[in-house]
Amino acid sequence: MSCVFCEIAAGRAPAYIIFRSARVIAFLDKYPIQSGHTLVAPVKHFRDLLETPDDILFELTRVVKLVAGAQVRALGAKGVRVVQNNGSAAGQVIFHVHFHVIPFYGLPQRGRKELDSSEGERIARTLSTALVDAESAKR
Amino acid sequence: MSCVFCEIAAGRAPAYIIFRSARVIAFLDKYPIQSGHTLVAPVKHFRDLLETPDDILFELTRVVKLVAGAQVRALGAKGVRVVQNNGSAAGQVIFHVHFHVIPFYGLPQRGRKELDSSEGERIARTLSTALVDAESAKR
Repeated sequence: MSCVFCEIAAGRAPAYIIFRSARVIAFLDKYPIQSGHTLVAPVKHFRDLLETPDDILFELTRVVKLVAGAQVRALGAKGVRVVQNNGSAAGQVIFHVHFHVIPFYGLPQRGRKELDSSEGERIARTLSTALVDAESAKR
Repeated sequence: MSCVFCEIAAGRAPAYIIFRSARVIAFLDKYPIQSGHTLVAPVKHFRDLLETPDDILFELTRVVKLVAGAQVRALGAKGVRVVQNNGSAAGQVIFHVHFHVIPFYGLPQRGRKELDSSEGERIARTLSTALVDAESAKR
């Protein structure tokens, strides 16, 4: 009955976390489609978009935009795709609502493979620094 | 230099519009991946997610959620995928920010083909009625 994203949010399961607020976390996808592929999810468990209250949804969306900006500025992404799946029929695998934020570099798509620790650490440090910079710039 | 989504928002280009507020419109994709495939876009022109102000982004997200709910309730979708592409490298084709809201029915994927007018009218009527009902229920 345990949910891996709840475990990650609680710090009981490992992940490369690049952003955390009281209500939202962002962390690297364990099986990235592209280098820098990030997931944005609420700390609290909601199954899907339809269950997520609007205030949480807006905070998720704000962080999605921050992450996309960081991917462009700090990773050199040429494009960013945001994907949010609801229900098995639409490809949802983890039933804790989340947004995929996927950078594209104008290169052929690589296969989806497990994130290795050296890439994970490097990308997470780059993105989290860029996110802190973006948040500070607004103040 | 004209933008087809600006033309649709201004009523100068045809589309099956299922929702309209002062700032956001939702209309059927001309080349649906699945029956009921809807696009949600701001009335005002912004190129992509990064250019879109947060207040407009939140209104877009609220309407995306309304449309997804209508697809489930009124079209019988078993799942819904939300996709938002930024930049050619990520598959953006129309450079006016928009969210795809794509219902899935647990059936094999059909090819992407042009929406015909009888399906367009029928689906647009079903979804727009469901959206009005959802908005009324909240008041």
